[in-house]
Amino acid sequence: MNYKDLPFVTVWIEYSEISTVLKPIGAKPLRHPNGSYAYTVPTLSDPNTGSLITDSIEIASYLERTYPEKPIFPNNSEGLINAFDSAYLGLLMPGVKFIIGRSAEILSPDSAKFFMDARCRAFNLTWDELTSEGQKREAEWALLEKGYSTVYEWYQKSNGKWVMGDTFSYADIIVACCLLWYKRVLREDEWARISSWNGGKWAQLLTDVEKECNFKLNLDLVA
Amino acid sequence: MNYKDLPFVTVWIEYSEISTVLKPIGAKPLRHPNGSYAYTVPTLSDPNTGSLITDSIEIASYLERTYPEKPIFPNNSEGLINAFDSAYLGLLMPGVKFIIGRSAEILSPDSAKFFMDARCRAFNLTWDELTSEGQKREAEWALLEKGYSTVYEWYQKSNGKWVMGDTFSYADIIVACCLLWYKRVLREDEWARISSWNGGKWAQLLTDVEKECNFKLNLDLVA
Repeated sequence: MNYKDLPFVTVWIEYSEISTVLKPIGAKPLRHPNGSYAYTVPTLSDPNTGSLITDSIEIASYLERTYPEKPIFPNNSEGLINAFDSAYLGLLMPGVKFIIGRSAEILSPDSAKFFMDARCRAFNLTWDELTSEGQKREAEWALLEKGYSTVYEWYQKSNGKWVMGDTFSYADIIVACCLLWYKRVLREDEWARISSWNGGKWAQLLTDVEKECNFKLNLDLVA
Repeated sequence: MNYKDLPFVTVWIEYSEISTVLKPIGAKPLRHPNGSYAYTVPTLSDPNTGSLITDSIEIASYLERTYPEKPIFPNNSEGLINAFDSAYLGLLMPGVKFIIGRSAEILSPDSAKFFMDARCRAFNLTWDELTSEGQKREAEWALLEKGYSTVYEWYQKSNGKWVMGDTFSYADIIVACCLLWYKRVLREDEWARISSWNGGKWAQLLTDVEKECNFKLNLDLVA
């Protein structure tokens, strides 16, 4: 919405309050194959149309249909970018368990408890297993670095700073959102490690996307 | 090459002969993380430039750079299509073991033996495990159908018959190549099953890609 110059307000919700807030307004929960369901953020409520949309890429799709100015799926790339989303998350997932661990450290006690329970269930691991240090953590770092090397190759295929060359798209936002997450929850030396990969590509991309979207993560504010 | 109207000849090689043919001409083998390596097909030898390129998507990339007419990575989509390739194969891989089994049935005895050994090593399964029938095979069918439902959703995101809407690309060739493989090696009722998914999308896409590339699989010739 920053990129599309759409005005918005963000309502921050504690993890433990998500269903309490979203259920009464009629948001659609995410359904798992096993029949269970969960309310999730982000959820978009658009007063212009009365629409209520859940799930990041569905929100992006809705915004593109409803507010086509400054396209985020240029040149009919929405199908490809959905595949990109799937491939990107699939590549990173094996290497981010310790980052999920760091995320709990910045939450309120109630939200941390909720978050840890939910992530343990999702990975079918205890919290200690999920956040294990030493060799296991180094193996995760290696997986994460390998994943980003592949993403780097994708970027190298196009001539330009974005994955579609000179054309900015939602694919770059997907990559930047994870980078923003790392920068926000990791320790300084850990973020420095990621920043050093692929000739500094990832710190640079985050800066470029922030600039393109007129947005800046303020670590001072939240530290 | 059909799509780009580039003249070519195909040299068919028995699986067991691949390294015998490719090593002397200086083809680059595929290296596994464990240090082993294997010569693979397709490999392109271009007499215009003396280039020798291995691996389908690398060949596509080379052809696009060298012969840019009729682009297969239009609108700077090469990075996204590399991600698409990764996501697509990742989705299908869990559901194609029985199709790998069928593939061995159409090979010469020498090639079949080579192919079966290589696939067993790749999946770390015995041939009987790889091609198991009954419940396990039905579970694979379900995985394959679920995978194609996701690919169908990607196609639905763009308005048009191709994944980039009205613009044909190498992404459609990637999808069609697997469909061609299924149609070639599966029994008629098995291919009919895939043809019935998603409103007949996959049989139609294969026909559309064959037409776009001026190419037709001739089952009679090889049956």
